[in-house]
Amino acid sequence: MKLPELSPAFKKAQSFISSREAEFRERLFEFLRFPSVSSDSRRRGDVARCAEWVRKRMREAGLKVELVPTEGHPIVYGERPGRPGGPALLVYGHYDVQPADPSKEPWRQDPFEPVVESGSVVARGASDDKGQVLALLCGIRAALEAGLGEDLHLKVLIEGEEEVGSQSLMPFVSREKERLRAEAVVIADSTQFAAGLPAITYGLRGILCLEIIVRGPKKDLHSGSYGGAVANPAMVLARMVAACHAPFGKVAIPGFYDKVRPLDDQEREEIRKLPFSDREFQEEVGAPKLWGEEGYSVLERRWARPTFEVNGLVSGHTGEGMKTVLPAEARAKISMRLVPDQDPEEIGRLASEYIQSLAPASAAVEVKLHHGARPVLVRCDTGAVRAAMEAIAVGFGREPVFVREGGSIPVVNTFKEALGTDSILIGLGLPDDGAHGPNEKFSLDDFRRGMVTMAALIEKLGKTGEGH
Amino acid sequence: MKLPELSPAFKKAQSFISSREAEFRERLFEFLRFPSVSSDSRRRGDVARCAEWVRKRMREAGLKVELVPTEGHPIVYGERPGRPGGPALLVYGHYDVQPADPSKEPWRQDPFEPVVESGSVVARGASDDKGQVLALLCGIRAALEAGLGEDLHLKVLIEGEEEVGSQSLMPFVSREKERLRAEAVVIADSTQFAAGLPAITYGLRGILCLEIIVRGPKKDLHSGSYGGAVANPAMVLARMVAACHAPFGKVAIPGFYDKVRPLDDQEREEIRKLPFSDREFQEEVGAPKLWGEEGYSVLERRWARPTFEVNGLVSGHTGEGMKTVLPAEARAKISMRLVPDQDPEEIGRLASEYIQSLAPASAAVEVKLHHGARPVLVRCDTGAVRAAMEAIAVGFGREPVFVREGGSIPVVNTFKEALGTDSILIGLGLPDDGAHGPNEKFSLDDFRRGMVTMAALIEKLGKTGEGH
Repeated sequence: MKLPELSPAFKKAQSFISSREAEFRERLFEFLRFPSVSSDSRRRGDVARCAEWVRKRMREAGLKVELVPTEGHPIVYGERPGRPGGPALLVYGHYDVQPADPSKEPWRQDPFEPVVESGSVVARGASDDKGQVLALLCGIRAALEAGLGEDLHLKVLIEGEEEVGSQSLMPFVSREKERLRAEAVVIADSTQFAAGLPAITYGLRGILCLEIIVRGPKKDLHSGSYGGAVANPAMVLARMVAACHAPFGKVAIPGFYDKVRPLDDQEREEIRKLPFSDREFQEEVGAPKLWGEEGYSVLERRWARPTFEVNGLVSGHTGEGMKTVLPAEARAKISMRLVPDQDPEEIGRLASEYIQSLAPASAAVEVKLHHGARPVLVRCDTGAVRAAMEAIAVGFGREPVFVREGGSIPVVNTFKEALGTDSILIGLGLPDDGAHGPNEKFSLDDFRRGMVTMAALIEKLGKTGEGH
Repeated sequence: MKLPELSPAFKKAQSFISSREAEFRERLFEFLRFPSVSSDSRRRGDVARCAEWVRKRMREAGLKVELVPTEGHPIVYGERPGRPGGPALLVYGHYDVQPADPSKEPWRQDPFEPVVESGSVVARGASDDKGQVLALLCGIRAALEAGLGEDLHLKVLIEGEEEVGSQSLMPFVSREKERLRAEAVVIADSTQFAAGLPAITYGLRGILCLEIIVRGPKKDLHSGSYGGAVANPAMVLARMVAACHAPFGKVAIPGFYDKVRPLDDQEREEIRKLPFSDREFQEEVGAPKLWGEEGYSVLERRWARPTFEVNGLVSGHTGEGMKTVLPAEARAKISMRLVPDQDPEEIGRLASEYIQSLAPASAAVEVKLHHGARPVLVRCDTGAVRAAMEAIAVGFGREPVFVREGGSIPVVNTFKEALGTDSILIGLGLPDDGAHGPNEKFSLDDFRRGMVTMAALIEKLGKTGEGH
């Protein structure tokens, strides 16, 4: 695809962005100075002040804004009506951030006092998601200043609980279904495939979590006096967990693969064409050797094949040294990543039944089902996706690649379930931005590219209105 | 066996014990009031004062005593020489106690302020081991007052580090090998088989502890983004641990059973005759069903068959809720109980080799060998054991049964290895005394029976000198 030609109005938006570079950067610093840690109750006031600040920026961008109180942190919602009968776009982001607790690898500076290092701003939330959110808001402001996409109904929803599970989002979206209705949702909360290689994420794995609890004797026993005559719950658990994997990297739960949609040759070919090195990936993770389901590449294994993973094991004595107990109990925390068309509820049932079928008479086995999320696969042949591709090409100077992601992004399911709308995931950040980690960063170039992309998207969607 | 006739001198010892009942009980209370918790560095002074008190009691009993300083807590050692060329008996016990930390099930009163409830004294250390130690010392005092066993070289060693691994005992015993040489060691630090059914423990299982550490990626990974392409160490561990058990309750490590001495028919018959109820045992442990190696009874499984037990498992997220990590590491703590003629060193090697042979290329597996102790099986046809049987019959009014114990008692190995001497384990306590637990108790009747038993043992050994 050759780069599209730019309209005079769009050039106006671009020069608006260029002329305000210093101001927008200062705004980004202001945004990053709020320690809006949603999980920390002592930061409640900071989170609220940050929401208020976001409201101002959205108003400044030309939107009619309201601060929606919730049981948790406020949702900031803004609109700019378009032509009656015109297309609608919902833009989503979040202003809350992960904690910046000191970890093994510490921050080089105060995580809430942004600094610029090698062209990137370093601070908690720089990439996840304040930098990306503000790029979208600045892009909207530039587009509206330049009179782009006047037909388009613009709806912007920035929440404050993404890092703590978006508890208040679903009730709000369900309640405001009519108002939020849109042909597409745009989310900038992911990453490019690699530096300079922008990406649209069209697939996400689903998830189903469960816990296995094996209970044996009523209390920990002396493994000398009792061992050999009482089943050891940790041993029973190990055997059951081991039996959930089959040879060749497969999951052993009967029926687990029944609904799995096979990867078609075209998609496999697209994935194969992505610049990806197994060797570099192995170096990144630091494992002695890669592993996975036979017959699939590393990216296919991570994006498009289901898994059964142990997230946690605990039983008996876990401290220093030895303590010769026969534990009363053993627990495993499990998550299964699901792909289309696996259904979390059905997989939960199949897993439960299988695990219970492995339980010996000498121990009591409980399987606790936790949250699930459906896998997502977005249609790529819609007008909105084509518009996003073109907008990215304008903003980043090259077309995006289409990628999937192995994790789940719950808000994508929220919008799909409540509004029936697919999300277009435009990643402005980089894979090594260190979201959730120390010294989180966001490139100031990507910050500007994001603004241009958003302005271009508004122009494309407002102009075409096609494909909805 | 009919009860032996009592000599006039022995009757004198008995009346000495009867006449001093109130005094000995008061002494027991004094002993129990020392919070001689060897693991608690803040109790160092209390432990030292308790050792000093023990020295006085031993001197009072007629022994020449010294307080031996060690790198840890003092050893109290006393002697009463017998006839040159006469037999020697080494008596062992400990004056230190377990902590009395508040646990789920709390103490009804101050654990270091003894009270009498239903004929038992309740306090930390009542049964383990102060009550039993003082019974022996009072018995020695009575015997010597009455002039019993004058041929016998009496050697008494009471240490202060049994509850923290007897670190100073081995160096002392090795250094004082000549002085400590004896035909038998008597230890009162175990229990009767059941109330009113005294026991001599003639067999102990050995032990070999190890830790399995499985390392995968260099840090915890997001199980969504990485899961499926990187081996999960918790999963690898589960599979390896599960592979250490074979069907029918057997251990799968090749060569594990090669040196196991089979139970002979006579011993199995003796065990079968013991009053033991599987149903009551199951109720005691509270497991849904008993379990174990096919072809063996519950007591045989606990006493005379080797095991492979998981004592602890830990990996990834072990707290509340779910955290979808692919853990960097997984650990299992393992102890194997060994029976004659398994050798801990050889079993450690076999286990290591087998576990390593299960390791996949996608994870690094480390096997750390920890401490081991040899299994013990004492000859029961010696004069010393016969004398102990008769003494118990005098003290308890009935002959002891011969039992084994599934745990290890390291001091038994210490004496065997350093002196070449077998220990005779005379349990004065009861199985439900609650050693190490809250509301530990010791029956005052058993306290008196223990004194009489000790006096009788001195008379028998001093008189006969046979069978050495």
